[in-house]
Amino acid sequence: MQPFELSLSDAARAVHARELSPVELTESVLDRIHAVEGRLGAYVTIAAEAALAAAVRAEREVAGGGPRGPLHGIPMGLKDLIDVEGMATTASSSVREGHVADRDSHVAARLDAAGAVLLGKTHTHEFAYGLTTPQTHNAWDHGRVAGGSSGGSAVAVAAGEATFAMGTDTGGSIRVPAALNGVVGLKPTYGLVSRSGVTSLSWSLDHVGPLTRTVQDAALVLSATAGHDPRDPASVAGPTADFSQRGDLRGLRVGVPRNHYFDRVSPEVEEAVRRGIERLAQLGAELVDVEIPMTRYIQATQWGLMVPEATAYHERSLRASAELYAPDVRVLLEAGELTSAGDYLRAQRARTMMRDAWARMFDGIDVLAGPTVPMTAVESGQETVEWADGTTESVADSYVRLSAPANITGVPALTLPVGHDHAGLPIGMQLMAGAFRDATVLRVGRAFEEAATDAGRLAPIAV
Amino acid sequence: MQPFELSLSDAARAVHARELSPVELTESVLDRIHAVEGRLGAYVTIAAEAALAAAVRAEREVAGGGPRGPLHGIPMGLKDLIDVEGMATTASSSVREGHVADRDSHVAARLDAAGAVLLGKTHTHEFAYGLTTPQTHNAWDHGRVAGGSSGGSAVAVAAGEATFAMGTDTGGSIRVPAALNGVVGLKPTYGLVSRSGVTSLSWSLDHVGPLTRTVQDAALVLSATAGHDPRDPASVAGPTADFSQRGDLRGLRVGVPRNHYFDRVSPEVEEAVRRGIERLAQLGAELVDVEIPMTRYIQATQWGLMVPEATAYHERSLRASAELYAPDVRVLLEAGELTSAGDYLRAQRARTMMRDAWARMFDGIDVLAGPTVPMTAVESGQETVEWADGTTESVADSYVRLSAPANITGVPALTLPVGHDHAGLPIGMQLMAGAFRDATVLRVGRAFEEAATDAGRLAPIAV
Repeated sequence: MQPFELSLSDAARAVHARELSPVELTESVLDRIHAVEGRLGAYVTIAAEAALAAAVRAEREVAGGGPRGPLHGIPMGLKDLIDVEGMATTASSSVREGHVADRDSHVAARLDAAGAVLLGKTHTHEFAYGLTTPQTHNAWDHGRVAGGSSGGSAVAVAAGEATFAMGTDTGGSIRVPAALNGVVGLKPTYGLVSRSGVTSLSWSLDHVGPLTRTVQDAALVLSATAGHDPRDPASVAGPTADFSQRGDLRGLRVGVPRNHYFDRVSPEVEEAVRRGIERLAQLGAELVDVEIPMTRYIQATQWGLMVPEATAYHERSLRASAELYAPDVRVLLEAGELTSAGDYLRAQRARTMMRDAWARMFDGIDVLAGPTVPMTAVESGQETVEWADGTTESVADSYVRLSAPANITGVPALTLPVGHDHAGLPIGMQLMAGAFRDATVLRVGRAFEEAATDAGRLAPIAV
Repeated sequence: MQPFELSLSDAARAVHARELSPVELTESVLDRIHAVEGRLGAYVTIAAEAALAAAVRAEREVAGGGPRGPLHGIPMGLKDLIDVEGMATTASSSVREGHVADRDSHVAARLDAAGAVLLGKTHTHEFAYGLTTPQTHNAWDHGRVAGGSSGGSAVAVAAGEATFAMGTDTGGSIRVPAALNGVVGLKPTYGLVSRSGVTSLSWSLDHVGPLTRTVQDAALVLSATAGHDPRDPASVAGPTADFSQRGDLRGLRVGVPRNHYFDRVSPEVEEAVRRGIERLAQLGAELVDVEIPMTRYIQATQWGLMVPEATAYHERSLRASAELYAPDVRVLLEAGELTSAGDYLRAQRARTMMRDAWARMFDGIDVLAGPTVPMTAVESGQETVEWADGTTESVADSYVRLSAPANITGVPALTLPVGHDHAGLPIGMQLMAGAFRDATVLRVGRAFEEAATDAGRLAPIAV
């Protein structure tokens, strides 16, 4: 196994044991980028020289006093919405031409302090406002969508172009591409990881979180990035939990949704996820049938909050240079100008009710399990999906349908690989828990992956 | 001195010492209501029989095991937005014809548990959406406005028609009528007192709080009503402070605003408040010159939040029976339908920035002192004010101008009497502090009132 193939946890152990140097690891990942990036388009910017220099510094420190922690000397990518001092934050948009960030985002500063090595900035669907990331190709089938909006981060991790990466998630933007590329993605509880210095899509729904090869890796990155930051008004004060807890699943109550999560889902996805849930039962969990509350409000609430908040954020540049946005993003931003305060307030009130109803649902279960997305990666350019019940749905609506509830309610949501469809495309299972129970979803996901054999496998890219 | 004239604290001491029975006190207050209510119009409903029955029960309990606490057997009024099981909550509006509350509001239940005796429901400006309370007359001059929207509560306390009363405050609705009637009014920190079961005007600005004759009384009522309630989404968990602390003012930093709070203020109000601030200095406080941040955003932020939230709350009844609202309230509610989501979001963002800027301001001072309202009670029917700088302002804009910042930022704000103008009308001084420093404003207000001689005097109503 070459260094670029290692999980973050395995790489960290090897660095700690002095079996692998940060420079060797970083060079391996940079070589891998060189070999496959032309076909994948995961990165906006690759900072190879700076990465090597950082790896050399990390190597010196590790040789001196040992690593600062598990992220020390580990190469990673940041979604290009996340500010790094002195670099452009392009948001994969022409609107940001000439932009240079004048200070680190909270999350970039935290990762830097942990000794992680920045490889570069990964592609996002323009300003995170879409579910495909058109500049980037799916790691498993280059003719298919990467998923979005953190498509570059997901593909980089899936293809060995980064040992881990950071993304953002407003309606599923970490979990959707993670599921479509066979990696782990975590949307932490709202308020747990600061968004300061991260370009906003919709501030009441935006989250920052990791994309990794294993659940254990996600726990390590969350530990390094969670915590209070007064510069994000939504950031929550107070101590953070230990996110790397292990333990068996005896006595754990896993909610299996009777509605919504298995409606209009492809048979292969349903089968793989139900098998995944059965595996949780074999590990000792008790399966509990649950009714998901208020499902007919999900779509209207998600869009009712997101559209006007996105438009408010882009107000000035829309007025100055609307023509610089891609047509799909521009039409959404312009639609936001037509939303009334009453519509927005109805969405806010529905969110409050939904948050309460979900909290009551979690009184009876520890985690909720279901698919992350209803179907695997679609062909690039495909706009709609036909379902067996005769309905047609846009690809975007379909990809957010199962992930948006965790954005609206703020609860933690993890996606992890549970298998592949007949074409070999990865399928993701989603685990959710009550607010601030991030440690619980990570513990369950980790028990699952330790019992599995195929977790964390890289996408099979011929070099 | 007759029992109806006593402050809550004095009445509680007398009840505790068995020098005054709850029945005697309640009868005295009911007699006073009988004598003066015809000229004042403070009450929507007077529940004399139920009050006497409650006083009898309280008397029996006090005779048995002593009072439950300082509110036991004390007669009080509730603004008629506050639900009491089995009673109408009219909101002083025809829209509520036939309404009966099916359970107690949190605050009514808390006061009931503390043994307070409910006298009745007091008038509000219709649905709290105005600053005058037209049904009610100022206690000091019946041709002048009571102030609003908690006008009935303020007049009842000022005239001896209740030993204390509860009000609500969205832009100044406790403090404005308290100041105009020479009583104490407290708008606690946002989230400290639950609003569940209280008719909403604008949920992100609404507060519930006491109107009393002394600052010490306000502390007692706050202690009995503060605390977490899961039925109010804004209610804050965690322990509440001791609100009855006393102490001198040595070392206390009192911010004296260099802008906003003394702009367009009548000379008599300015003089009385500056004298009040000087008295704080004589008590040991250090006066610190402060610049109030972001003052040009106050009015747009207050209205930008309040108008669409109020309209959203009234959406259905507006559609069903707009003609039942008074014209002044109806026009505001209908205006809310025209607000765009963008305008509302701009107001939300301005609030976030203002809250941060005020928090920074309070890093350098313990309390901020200024007038509560720029002028004493105007004649009923007066619509505008002319200022010395040649500008004209609506009475409503004028009365909210100095109180709204504490609603927008959520900080605690207390008004207490500091003197009278040439016509004998009362003048209020406002004390504010950082969020959850309610104990600080109460401590300062109490030190002030203990050094003063004229605090808590009832309005001079000839019977």
